[in-house]
Amino acid sequence: MSVLVVGSVALDSVKTPFGEIEEALGGSATYASVSASFFDAVNLVAVVGDDFAEENVQLLKGFEIDVSGLKRQTGETFRWKGYYTYNLNEAITTETCLNVFADFNPILPDEYKKANHIFLANIDPELQLKVLEQIEKPEIILLDTMNFWIMNKRDSLIKTIERVDILVVNDAEARELTGEANLIKAASKIRSIGPGRVIIKKGEHGALMFSKDGIFSAPAYPIEDIFDPTGAGDTFAGGLIGYLSGVHGKNEEDFKRGVIFGSAMASFVVEKFSLDRLKTLTWEEIRNRYYQFKKLTHFEVE
Amino acid sequence: MSVLVVGSVALDSVKTPFGEIEEALGGSATYASVSASFFDAVNLVAVVGDDFAEENVQLLKGFEIDVSGLKRQTGETFRWKGYYTYNLNEAITTETCLNVFADFNPILPDEYKKANHIFLANIDPELQLKVLEQIEKPEIILLDTMNFWIMNKRDSLIKTIERVDILVVNDAEARELTGEANLIKAASKIRSIGPGRVIIKKGEHGALMFSKDGIFSAPAYPIEDIFDPTGAGDTFAGGLIGYLSGVHGKNEEDFKRGVIFGSAMASFVVEKFSLDRLKTLTWEEIRNRYYQFKKLTHFEVE
Repeated sequence: MSVLVVGSVALDSVKTPFGEIEEALGGSATYASVSASFFDAVNLVAVVGDDFAEENVQLLKGFEIDVSGLKRQTGETFRWKGYYTYNLNEAITTETCLNVFADFNPILPDEYKKANHIFLANIDPELQLKVLEQIEKPEIILLDTMNFWIMNKRDSLIKTIERVDILVVNDAEARELTGEANLIKAASKIRSIGPGRVIIKKGEHGALMFSKDGIFSAPAYPIEDIFDPTGAGDTFAGGLIGYLSGVHGKNEEDFKRGVIFGSAMASFVVEKFSLDRLKTLTWEEIRNRYYQFKKLTHFEVE
Repeated sequence: MSVLVVGSVALDSVKTPFGEIEEALGGSATYASVSASFFDAVNLVAVVGDDFAEENVQLLKGFEIDVSGLKRQTGETFRWKGYYTYNLNEAITTETCLNVFADFNPILPDEYKKANHIFLANIDPELQLKVLEQIEKPEIILLDTMNFWIMNKRDSLIKTIERVDILVVNDAEARELTGEANLIKAASKIRSIGPGRVIIKKGEHGALMFSKDGIFSAPAYPIEDIFDPTGAGDTFAGGLIGYLSGVHGKNEEDFKRGVIFGSAMASFVVEKFSLDRLKTLTWEEIRNRYYQFKKLTHFEVE
């Protein structure tokens, strides 16, 4: 089996209280693909400009990501500039140049259409729908979105949400989408639209997963020095869908472990800029952190 | 064994988005005592005015709380008025009349001086020190405080913190006390002052416990309708110290279970105004919620 990831590949210029980096490889599909690649084979669909360095393509290939769906187009690659203050939960965007990403038209190579596990990273919900129409027999579709689409393309977004299995959003987005301040009520409303499962990310406070089987509360891994939070959400989603694909996960316990592995991957990516931490990450380190997550919340019922 | 609780007994007038109540029984020592009483015998030290209704004394006695340390003094009982907006994490105080509480001088009845488990609820740290000087052989001292003392009586507060086993504060207080934005660093700094254990309450995001054995992350119980958050922190602390006293808890697992039982008690108290929910609470309900806490974070490591 393999995972299909559709989203953005970008060059990020980021400043945090701890340093800065210029035009580093980023984008939702990049983080998600690399994260998923630790668990299963990955097919990536995105678009870059003719300025996209071959070195970046090689980096993705180094993670054994199939890049035959990474289209190269005349023009410049999507660029994002932003910074974080000491409130590392919130990025402040200073510049977004969509460039070739403005005309992104995700056409799946034929061999991608049989994908079972799909992560639709944050892009225009109309494009997300277009991807769904090309998929033949999806097993699990994981969808991300953002406040911009909730505000400006609500109808298309709802149509997309209707067709997916899991929606992953942050707490502010869940509230904005549903008009409910309480996250449990917000999750119920979202589930009534279609997805059997909703995951609400709460940044440094972890994540909540809602399904017919109840609520699962995943802690955040306690980190003394979060270096750069960019990509944490996509790394989480990539780890989750990668794990589910890798183990053919279907039951509640698989989803719980998927959320923990996703959280573990996110806890690594924020330790350094861009993909730097994932470049040296080993399976043993992931496994160890997974056990630490267990230790963090485990107590024996007497 | 029994628990000693020292703090305030007050009459609270509270308004929330869901209703309001006038001069209901409240105060840090009240909530903590009642919560602890579900786990062990409780001795209460506080002061009330001659206007304090006999009905309230009977209510405390109904929970089998020993009120021989509840001093009745000429004057009016401590009154607090406040309200909550939809951000239920933060109370907005409109009026605080200390009344007889302004001259509170906690003198322990002789039989209270042998207390093993003590909760020093949020009062002037100089008074908290005075209580400590009267205790003969304390086993576990749990201390609460608030931003007002951190700002205005920092030296006395530090001296008090040096002498206790566990400090319980909320996230903002931990940051204010240490000047560290990161909670792990804040907890380390607090532990270096003296307490082997620090518990940081994060409201709707649960609590973190730090000790030499590592970090324990307790989730908050997901509640659709938090009716009135008043007293949640003291109810948490009361449940924790009550549990530890009741089971003679000494090891890490006992403390973890104590944090969960404290969280369970807090999750009940916010369902209604004042002590209303605790009046009807049964041991079976507490036990069930404790199991639900387990289910909320439990996952099987594969």
